[in-house]
This record gives sequence, structure tokens and C-alpha cells, in this order.
Amino acid sequence: MTSASDHSSPADPGSLPLSLADITAAAATIRGAVAVTDCNYSRTLSDIYGCNIWLKFENHQFTSSFKERGALNRLHALSSEERTRGVIAMSAGNHAQGVAYHARRLGIPATIVMPLGTPMVKVENTRRHDAEVIISGQTLEEAGAFARERAKAQGLTLVHPYDDSLIMAGNGTVALEMLEMAPELDTLVVPIGGGGLISGMAIAARSLRPELRIVGVQAELYPSMYNAISGGQRPMRGDTLAEGIAVKAPGRITTEIIRKLVDDIALVTEDQIERAVATLIAIEKTVVEGAGAAALGAVLAAPEHYRGRNVGLVLSGGNIDTRLIASVLTRELAREGRLTQLAIDIPDRPGRLAAVASLLAEAGANIIEVSHQRTFSDLPAKATLLELVIETRDKAHLDEVMARLDAAGFKVRL
Amino acid sequence: MTSASDHSSPADPGSLPLSLADITAAAATIRGAVAVTDCNYSRTLSDIYGCNIWLKFENHQFTSSFKERGALNRLHALSSEERTRGVIAMSAGNHAQGVAYHARRLGIPATIVMPLGTPMVKVENTRRHDAEVIISGQTLEEAGAFARERAKAQGLTLVHPYDDSLIMAGNGTVALEMLEMAPELDTLVVPIGGGGLISGMAIAARSLRPELRIVGVQAELYPSMYNAISGGQRPMRGDTLAEGIAVKAPGRITTEIIRKLVDDIALVTEDQIERAVATLIAIEKTVVEGAGAAALGAVLAAPEHYRGRNVGLVLSGGNIDTRLIASVLTRELAREGRLTQLAIDIPDRPGRLAAVASLLAEAGANIIEVSHQRTFSDLPAKATLLELVIETRDKAHLDEVMARLDAAGFKVRL
Repeated sequence: MTSASDHSSPADPGSLPLSLADITAAAATIRGAVAVTDCNYSRTLSDIYGCNIWLKFENHQFTSSFKERGALNRLHALSSEERTRGVIAMSAGNHAQGVAYHARRLGIPATIVMPLGTPMVKVENTRRHDAEVIISGQTLEEAGAFARERAKAQGLTLVHPYDDSLIMAGNGTVALEMLEMAPELDTLVVPIGGGGLISGMAIAARSLRPELRIVGVQAELYPSMYNAISGGQRPMRGDTLAEGIAVKAPGRITTEIIRKLVDDIALVTEDQIERAVATLIAIEKTVVEGAGAAALGAVLAAPEHYRGRNVGLVLSGGNIDTRLIASVLTRELAREGRLTQLAIDIPDRPGRLAAVASLLAEAGANIIEVSHQRTFSDLPAKATLLELVIETRDKAHLDEVMARLDAAGFKVRL
Repeated sequence: MTSASDHSSPADPGSLPLSLADITAAAATIRGAVAVTDCNYSRTLSDIYGCNIWLKFENHQFTSSFKERGALNRLHALSSEERTRGVIAMSAGNHAQGVAYHARRLGIPATIVMPLGTPMVKVENTRRHDAEVIISGQTLEEAGAFARERAKAQGLTLVHPYDDSLIMAGNGTVALEMLEMAPELDTLVVPIGGGGLISGMAIAARSLRPELRIVGVQAELYPSMYNAISGGQRPMRGDTLAEGIAVKAPGRITTEIIRKLVDDIALVTEDQIERAVATLIAIEKTVVEGAGAAALGAVLAAPEHYRGRNVGLVLSGGNIDTRLIASVLTRELAREGRLTQLAIDIPDRPGRLAAVASLLAEAGANIIEVSHQRTFSDLPAKATLLELVIETRDKAHLDEVMARLDAAGFKVRL
């Protein structure tokens, strides 16, 4: 974890473009139409990481993310003429579903612009709420430009995903619920994409509890808000499992609020995000997307920063492709020493594969895949390369298996 | 789904070895020490299956299954002398953790007997609660015999996993909570292993609501209670994902109660159990073990049996190995047409692999695995076999890809 530690000191929330009153008003507006999700203490995670951990299950919203809160609060503020003309939003993800779902509930026509290459499942999930989906633009930025033009041309109201005080106020209701359900909390850890969630939450939380510590989390591959706050120039690139917070351009208003109210921004690696997703599945039996696991990723990356504290983690969303879940879990098994790829040099004589297989069977290791490579190995002509994927009970069992192979004279590479 | 439709007609619960009063007493006993788990309406599952579906999240118990309820109720009834001597239980799974956890809480020494070959993770999860774990016996039956001998020899109290009225009474509290949280319910669907959960629930539910329909669910591979009730002789064999309900010998008391109070026993296939696990992950963002998904398996197998009804499904537990989750999700992707294994016969000329790869790229299909097999195919010497695993968006996309390959003259086998 890397932290933007040169943040400004906490400011009076009263001087900001949004107030606690806006957030309590939003809470009243969305009541009954957006779930008040659980905020539960996790004994097991608390034991593992040496702090008291509460989880806020925004992945249990109907469209599986907190985005409904801001979207509904924004839609409610439309004039009746604006409602009739309709709204437009640009999003390949959770914002699209939040806007589409509540627009339909309120009878407001909704158009969602998604960039080319948006996974079909996200398009379908948005169409299911009767939104018109337009696929346009090679990037999110191009899709956004298209949405702005279309809004102008057709008189539609553009619903921005984060840089809008009604959106922030709606999202801030997450903090009201957490502090009511878990008054012990002294720290909130919140993922940051554009910054719309943490901005609203910070204003609510700091107004109610000035001493509360607020930590934002970004993916190390997309440190946009971190750069904005710290003046850094870290690059933004690559594929992250936390695509929900891979936002290149942080909001103007959100940046201002975060600079004043957020104590620290932690950056988490892909490995930490993956481990957090796998941990929440294995221990909490709950499914979150990469962005939704980022807050736990920050804690597992640096538990010493949270030692003894009462920490609330926002599991911001649960929209993750099942193929990614399978891949994350498989990689976690490899990390734990339960799935291992081995390459064994063996003399090219009958019976050697059988000898390896028997030895592994005796040691209780399960062979998952075998590839017996002869032609293209870099070994001498009389040797051959056996590649295996084996399953073991844990790291200790793997070590035992490796020791047995070694004792039997096999040259093994991991 | 196959049903044991020749069940007896519902009887007066008053004539049974357990009463509503025992279950309400159990509820008072376990209050505060066992979670009152959520019982939530699922709009999406209700839409998909054409009935109103509530889910009871027993996978969210601390040890991730309902077993704690019965175990704690049983432990509370021990005399102070029995507490001092300690308890013993035989289980490779959820009962072990339930007994171990609450025994430690109450300061009661616990010994758990597990059969040889019990996965290390289950042994560790039980040891974590300070239980003494003894690995003994090739089968659950042999481990059970060992536990009985040890109980006799050392004066320990044997805590049976289901055939004990205190266990049943504790488990019956699930029904009290469901009917309180969702008074609309007219149907309960409950997995059956030994029968300890459904027995307690049936007595509670029928006492409060005589007209309530109660459906039990077993894995088709282990139809022990189905056979006992219907007089059938279906075989019991094989590996089931729902190992938590793969019980060969149903309880004596539980069988009597089920015969009198349960309307029907549905048998679900492995395919249905797998689909239910994958559906709960994809839609509800919740992780259940095979047995915990069996109730949904029964609904997805025969939605017409539940049409228009208000159905409560017990998600009985969440202890599933992450490797199994990964495998279940991958198989579900194959079922949905999103991951597909293809074998393509191509002439053995340079450029043909490139041609296939380009065509797939143009069609938007992602190549996950390639194997180019020359020596051992059953094709003529001048041909070669290309095996691929490809990822497509959905079934329609797969069909489109297949059509393109066909139009380009490739001979493809699925």
C-alpha cells in the first residue's frame, strides 16, 4: 500500500458545497426505494487483521451497488418537464444500472451510453430495466462526449456518475447508516473512483463525528485522485480487477471535498484486490467486485495502520463476472500452496512418469493436469520434461510433497 | 426432480415426540449466541421462477451453517457433571464446527471424530475452536462407531447430528424466524440429510400454520429419506456436491416426523445443485455449499410446482471449498454457451491456425486455450486437429461464431 500522506488537515465541513442537511434530506428521499443494507461486525476478519471490522453490504442493493442512492436522489430532483423529456447517462457499469432501474420505477425515459466492447452481460442487465442502450465510442471519454451531445440535441438531463452534489448527497447516506448501525466506528475505508461515494460519506461522517478517520482507496493502476491530491504523476494504465474505480478523471467538486476531509488515500495492488475478493468469498460467503473489495484490500495490505481501531469497510458493489470469480479463486489456491504447477526433468525411459505419479499418490497430492513435453524442452536429448498441476492440502503439504520428490532424486522446478 | 408423492397426509403435530413449546424454549436458549439470520425476499429470483421467493441465510451463521442452533440447544441441556466430562461428536462437516464452537464458548471440552481423508481445511476449521480432533475410520459409519466407543470409555456425552429431539428443537427455530420475518410464506423448502433440520422446522411451522406446505429436498445420489418414506430402493452412490446431505442412514425419530408432516420430498440432480450454487453467486452475491443450494435446485428443477406461491428456501450452509466454487462457475459458463471446447479438423498447411485465430478474433471470440494435435489424431496424415477453448458473450454469440467457422469451410466439432 502507498499512501497520499501529504494530505491537507481536516477542514470544517460547513465550508463545503454540500452539507449534512443535504444528505439527511437524501436519506428521506430514497427511503423505501433503496435498501438499507446490513452493516455487520465480522469476528473472523477482526481476528485475522487485528482490528474491529464492520462490513457495509452495498453489494446487496437490488442492482448490486451503492450507485442507486445517488442516482435516485438525482432523479427525484428533476422538474416534471425534465422527467418527461428523460435522462441520459454514460456508464459501462453500476451507474448505468442504478439510473436505468430507478428511472423506470419513476416512469422517466432513460438512455444509457456505453462504450464499444462493453460486456454483453452489462448491456443486457441495463436493457432489462427498459433503458435505451446506445453503444458508442472507443473509450469511456468518447462515450461521455457522445452522451453530452445527445443530451444537448434532445433536451435530456445528463446524470453525471459522481461530480454532482445530488449524487454525492445520495451516496453519503451510506455513512449515515453505518454510523447509526455501528456507533463504535472510528475509521471508514471507502473505495474512490470519481470520488462521489467518499465525498458524500466524508461530509456526513465528519459533520456527525469530527474525529472520525476517513481513508480512501484506489487501485494502484489508476491512482487518479491520489495524484490529484498529492500532486503526484503516477501512471494510469492496464487492466484492473477493480474496473469500477478505474476512473482517469476525478471529479472537480469531489477532489475539493476529498482534499479537505479525507485523511489518506491508500493504493492497492491487483494482488491485494484479488486476495480481498477471495477472502470475502471464503470467510464472509459474500461476492463483491474488485472495487467492492478494495477497502479490505487496503486493510490486508497494511493491517498495522488499523490495529485496534473500529473500522467500517464499504463493500461498494457485487457486479463481477463469474469467469473472473473462478479465476480469482484459482489464483488464490495457487497462492495458498493448494494448486501448484511443477516442471520435473526426468530421464526419457519407460516407467518414469509412473514413478512420479505413484510418488504423488502416496504423498496424497492430486494430479490435476499433466503435460509430457519431449520435442521442445531445453533438456538434453535423453531427458524429457514433465509438467504437472497438482493439488495439495496446504503449503505444508506442498513442502512435504516437494521434499519427497527431491528425496527420490527428481529435479523439480516450481 | 422426482418426488416421493405417496407420502402420508399431514398429521397433528401434537402427537409427535417434539412440540412447538420445545422449539420456542430452544429459541430462548440460543438467543444472543446464535445469529438471527436475514430472511429476505428476492425480486430477481421471484421473477425468474414465477413464484415469490424468500431466502433464509443460514450460510451467514458464524460457523456458516444452521447446525449451531441444534448443537447449542443440546449443549445447554447438559448437567454440570456432563459439562465437566465433555462431549464427543462425529462429523466431517458443519456439525463438527457447530459443536466445537459452542462447546468452547461454554467451557465444555469437545472431541470431534472425523473419518480419514477429511479435507485439511475442515480439520483446521474445527481445531480452531479448540476441539480435540481425532481422525479415525475409513467411513463416516466407522468414525461414528469409534465415537460411540470413546464416549462410553471416557464418559463423554455423544452429540448426535440429527436424531435427538434437542437438536431438532434447536434447528426448528429456523422456521420460527422465517414465519415471523415473512408471514406471507405458504411453502417451505428445506434440505434433508439425516432430517434434523426439516423435522424441527415442520413441527414449528405446522403448529403455527397447519396449512403450510413443507417440501424436503435430497440429492438424487443419496435418496435415503426418500426411500424410507416412499418404500423405494433407489441406490445411494457417488460423489455429490451436496455432501452435507449425503447421509445414508436417516434418523429414526426424524423419519417418523417427516412421514407425518412433510408433504413431499424432491430429489435434485448434480446439475440442478450446481446451477443453484452458480445462480446464488451470480444473482444474490451469496456463497452456499451444495446442500445449501438444494432448495433452490428443487425450485429451478420444477418451477411449475411453486407457481404463484410464497416460497421460503433455507440456504442451510456456506462451507464449500473455493476450488469447487471455481469449478461450478466454469461449468455454468459452459452451460450458458460462454466457454466452449471446440475441435477443428484443419489441413496440415502453414497458415491454417492463423486463419482460424483471425476468424475468431473478428467474430469477437476470445481464445482461452489452444492445443494443436498432430501425432495422435484419428485424421488422415495430411490433416491435423486443433482443439480450442473459446469464450463468447452468450449462446447467440457462440452460434454466430460457429456459423462463421462453418461458412469459412472449417469442420468443427463441439
